[in-house]
Amino acid sequence: MPLHPILIAGQWRPSQATGSFRIDNPATGETLPDEFPISAWADCDTALNAAAAAAVALRTTPLEKIAHFLTRFAERIEARKVELVDMAHAESGLPKAPRLGDVELPRTTGQLRQAAAAVLEGSWALPTIDTKLDIRSTLAPIGPVLVFGPNNFPFAFNSVSGGDFAAAIATGNPVIAKSNTSHPGVTRLLAEEAFAAVGEAGLPPATVQLIYRTSHADGERLVSDPRVGATGYTGSRGAGLKLKAAADAAGKPIYLELSSVNPVVMLPGALTERGAKLAEEFTGSCLMGTGQFCTSPSIVVLFASAEAEQFVSTVKARLEAAPVAPLLSSSVARSLAASVETLRAAGAEILTGGTVVRTPGSRYANTLLRVSGDGFLAAPEKLQTEAFGNASLMVVVKDVDQAVQVISHFEGNLTGCVYSDTKGSDDALYARLEPLLRERVGRLLNDKMPTGVAVSSAMNHGGPYPSTGHPGFTAVGIPASLRRFAALQCYDNVRAARLPVSLRNQNPNGKMWRLVDGQWSQANIGA
Amino acid sequence: MPLHPILIAGQWRPSQATGSFRIDNPATGETLPDEFPISAWADCDTALNAAAAAAVALRTTPLEKIAHFLTRFAERIEARKVELVDMAHAESGLPKAPRLGDVELPRTTGQLRQAAAAVLEGSWALPTIDTKLDIRSTLAPIGPVLVFGPNNFPFAFNSVSGGDFAAAIATGNPVIAKSNTSHPGVTRLLAEEAFAAVGEAGLPPATVQLIYRTSHADGERLVSDPRVGATGYTGSRGAGLKLKAAADAAGKPIYLELSSVNPVVMLPGALTERGAKLAEEFTGSCLMGTGQFCTSPSIVVLFASAEAEQFVSTVKARLEAAPVAPLLSSSVARSLAASVETLRAAGAEILTGGTVVRTPGSRYANTLLRVSGDGFLAAPEKLQTEAFGNASLMVVVKDVDQAVQVISHFEGNLTGCVYSDTKGSDDALYARLEPLLRERVGRLLNDKMPTGVAVSSAMNHGGPYPSTGHPGFTAVGIPASLRRFAALQCYDNVRAARLPVSLRNQNPNGKMWRLVDGQWSQANIGA
Repeated sequence: MPLHPILIAGQWRPSQATGSFRIDNPATGETLPDEFPISAWADCDTALNAAAAAAVALRTTPLEKIAHFLTRFAERIEARKVELVDMAHAESGLPKAPRLGDVELPRTTGQLRQAAAAVLEGSWALPTIDTKLDIRSTLAPIGPVLVFGPNNFPFAFNSVSGGDFAAAIATGNPVIAKSNTSHPGVTRLLAEEAFAAVGEAGLPPATVQLIYRTSHADGERLVSDPRVGATGYTGSRGAGLKLKAAADAAGKPIYLELSSVNPVVMLPGALTERGAKLAEEFTGSCLMGTGQFCTSPSIVVLFASAEAEQFVSTVKARLEAAPVAPLLSSSVARSLAASVETLRAAGAEILTGGTVVRTPGSRYANTLLRVSGDGFLAAPEKLQTEAFGNASLMVVVKDVDQAVQVISHFEGNLTGCVYSDTKGSDDALYARLEPLLRERVGRLLNDKMPTGVAVSSAMNHGGPYPSTGHPGFTAVGIPASLRRFAALQCYDNVRAARLPVSLRNQNPNGKMWRLVDGQWSQANIGA
Repeated sequence: MPLHPILIAGQWRPSQATGSFRIDNPATGETLPDEFPISAWADCDTALNAAAAAAVALRTTPLEKIAHFLTRFAERIEARKVELVDMAHAESGLPKAPRLGDVELPRTTGQLRQAAAAVLEGSWALPTIDTKLDIRSTLAPIGPVLVFGPNNFPFAFNSVSGGDFAAAIATGNPVIAKSNTSHPGVTRLLAEEAFAAVGEAGLPPATVQLIYRTSHADGERLVSDPRVGATGYTGSRGAGLKLKAAADAAGKPIYLELSSVNPVVMLPGALTERGAKLAEEFTGSCLMGTGQFCTSPSIVVLFASAEAEQFVSTVKARLEAAPVAPLLSSSVARSLAASVETLRAAGAEILTGGTVVRTPGSRYANTLLRVSGDGFLAAPEKLQTEAFGNASLMVVVKDVDQAVQVISHFEGNLTGCVYSDTKGSDDALYARLEPLLRERVGRLLNDKMPTGVAVSSAMNHGGPYPSTGHPGFTAVGIPASLRRFAALQCYDNVRAARLPVSLRNQNPNGKMWRLVDGQWSQANIGA
C-alpha cells in the first residue's frame, strides 16, 4: 500500500519522508495495512510557513466562520461515525460501545460545539476596559499551535479533534497536529473531515495541518521554532519534558499534561460504612479504559484495619474476576511491565497479576500491588512510578501521622480523592489531611472516582508539576482551556475605530461579558 | 559600620554572610556608609523553610488580615516618606520631587491599596461554579514567591513594596524579597515598615522576608527550590534568562520582565501635522528617569522626508540642551556605554552624545543615534540592543515596504506606539503596519508615549518573548497581575461545608464576581 499523504499548506500531499511505519491492532496482534510517513524537517518547515500565513489571515477572519468550522467539523464527525469508530477500535483495541461510539465520540463533538459557542460569545478572552484611562485589553491568538495528542483517547484528545485542538482553533490559531503514533488511521480520517470543514467554512486552508511522525530532534525543533506560538502536549513524562526543555529555551509557551498517579485516600469511617461498595467503585474506575486514563486511580491510601484488609481482598478478587482487556499498544504493555517491576523492586508486593498475558494482542494481567506506609516512605519516588494501564498500588499506613508523611511525599498530580463516611466520624481526619492533598493536586474529589473529566467551565484537568508544566492552566474545560493559547494585548489611547470590536464601547453581540471599570457587564459602554 | 541584618524567619538577624557590599551615590560618586551582607545559602535555606511554613499558615488566615496588612503598609510608607525619599534619592540619584516623592511613592501606596481592595473583593481568582455537575474551581495561592526587583524604581517595583510584591501577597503567598543591589538601603527601610505591618495585621511573621544579595549560583538554586511556588523577576535579560533556565528545569513558574526597546512609529502625516510637538513629547519621554524606564522609547521609525529630518534635528537640539542627569549606578553607565558602542559598531551613526560625562557621579551624555532602513536591515539584531539609559536610535526608512521589513524584524517588546495625523491621511499606512507591530508588543499606543504604565485593570505591562517569558501575563495591573502567582484548584463533588468560602452557594461578600454556569454574577446561588 502506498504511503498516506500528509496535510500541509492546504493540501494532502506526499511527505518528504525519511521512513514509514505501520501499527498493530493491539487486540489481535495483527499488523494493520495502512502505511504512514515519517516526515523530514522539510515537511515541518512547509507546515510552519503555511501556519504562519494562516495565523495572519485568521486574525481578520470573522468569528462566525471559525464557529461554523467547529460546528461543521462536529457534524462531519458524526456523519462518519461508523468508520471512525471501526478505525479507532482497530487501532486502539478500545470497545466500540459504549466507550468509542457512545461516550468518547459524543464528548468530542460536544466539546467542538462548546468551543464554537465560546467563539461566538467571546467572554473567554476576558476583555477588560478602563474607561477613565482609555486603556483596553483582551486575550488574543498566540500564533500557530502545535498539538501532540496522547495515545489513550483517539477522538477526545486527538491532536486534530480533541481538547487542545478545539481550544487552539477557538482562540483563533491555526493548528499543526502531530498524530499520536498509536492511531494514525483515525487521525487521518478526522483530519479529512476537519479539512473539508475548513473549506466549507472558508477558513484559510492551512488552519488545520497534519504530520504523522517526525524524529525526536525535529519534534524539539518544532516546539522551539520562531514561527510557533505555543504547543499543547499530552503524553509521557519523558518525551514531554524533552519538548519542554526545547520550548523553554526558546521562550515558547508549552502546555503539558503528563503522568499522574491520582491518589485516593480512603478514610476509615468510609470503609466501615460502605467498604464493599467502594471496592466495586474503585475497581471499575481503575479498569476503565484498561487503566489507561490520565486520571486513573493508581495509588490508594488505606489505614491498617480489618476493613482495609477486606477492601484489598475484595478489590483483588474483583480484578481477578474481570476480563483482561487489551492495552493500547505493545509499547504500553512493555512500559506497564517495566513499571510494575520498578514498583516491585522498590518494595511493593504483587497481590495479583504482574504478568504479561500472552494472547491475543497486547495484554497485561489486571494487577494489584501493596506496600506498607513504612515501605512507601523508604522509596517514595520509585513507588510513585506511573504504571500506565491496569495496575494499582495499595499503601497501607499504620496511623494518621504516617498518612501525613505519605501524602506529604506525593508529587504533583492531576487529581486526588478523599472518601469519608457520611456521619462525620472522618471529619477531623479529613480536616488534617485535605490541606496536604489539596496543594498537590489540580482537582480534589470527595466520594467520587477521578476518571470522569467533564467538559465543564469549572473543570481543572491540570495540576502541579510534574503532572503538568504549570499549575495555573487546565487542558479541559471551556473557557479556561482556551486561555492557554492566547497572548494579552493591550490598547492604550487607541482610536475607537482602530480597536478590535470586542473592546469598542458597543458590546459586539450583547452577550459578551467584559470587565468594565472593575465590574463584569454585558452592556454597551456609555449606554 | 556593622553589617545590616537580614529579615528572615520572622526576625531581623545577622546574615550568614560570605561577604559584604556598599554602594555609591550615583549623583555624587561618594560611597554611602551602609554595609550590607552577601548571604550564603544557609540564609536562603532558612528563609525557604520559614516561607513554606508561612504559606501554610496564610491559607487559613482571614482575607481581612491580608488586606489590613497591605493598607497598613501603605500608611507606614507614607508616614516615613521623608526618610524613604531621602534614601532613595541618595541611592538612585533620582529627583526627590516630583519623581520620588510625588509620583513614585504615591503610585506604590496606591498599588498596595488597590491590592488590598482586590483581596477583599476576591474576583481576581475567577471563581467558577458549575451547579449542574457540582464542579467548582478557583485560583489559589501558588506558594512562596521570590521577588527580584529592578534597579529603576526603588519604590514602585521594589522587591518588598512593588507590583510583584503586592500581587504575590494579595494572592495569599509569602514573599522572599531579594533586594536590588542598587538600592539596599531603601529596601531595608521598606522591609522594616512591611515587617511592622505584618505584626500589626497578625500575619505569619515570615510573610515578608528580605535578603540583600546572594551568589548567582544561589539565585538559580533559589528559583528552582522545591519549596518555592513561583518567581517574579524584573531586570536585565542576561541575568533573567539564567534564572529562567534554572526555574524551567525544575518546573517552577517564573515571570520575567526583561529588556524592551519600545518602538515608536511616526507616520508621515503626524510629522507634517505636529512634528515640533512630537519632538518635544518624544524627548521628554526618552529622558524620563534618564531613560531608565522599561518602557523608554529607544527606537523610532521615521519615513525619509524633510519633516523627518526636522524631527531628528529638533530632538538632537533638545537632547543637547537638556541637563545630563545621573544614571542609577556606575554599572548602568558602563552598560550604556557598551550598548551605544554595539549600536555604533553595527552601523548606527552617533548624532549627539555617545560619551561618558566625567563628573560628578555616573552620567552619560544624552545620546541620539541614527541608521537608515537599509542599515537597520543589515544588522537588525544588534541594532535592537537595549541601550538602557538616555539614548535612542532613529531608523529612517525609505518607503512603506522598508517599514514593513523593519517592523517585521522587531523582537517582542513591552510596548509599541504609532503616531498618525488626525485627518486620516495616515490611515492606510496605519492599517498596513499596525498588525505587524501589534503581534510584537504587549501594549499598543496611539499618539502617546509609552513611559507611563498606569496601574489599571486593563494594563498590560508584558509582551512577547524576549520582553517577558510568556505573552499571557502582565506585571502591572490589578486583577490580572495577581493571577501570575496562583494555581488553579478544582473541587469536584466536594461537600459544601468543605469548600472554600468563595465557592460556596452563598456569595461570601455580596460583591465577588463569580462565573456561575457561564454567567458572571454577584448573587448567591439558589437564591
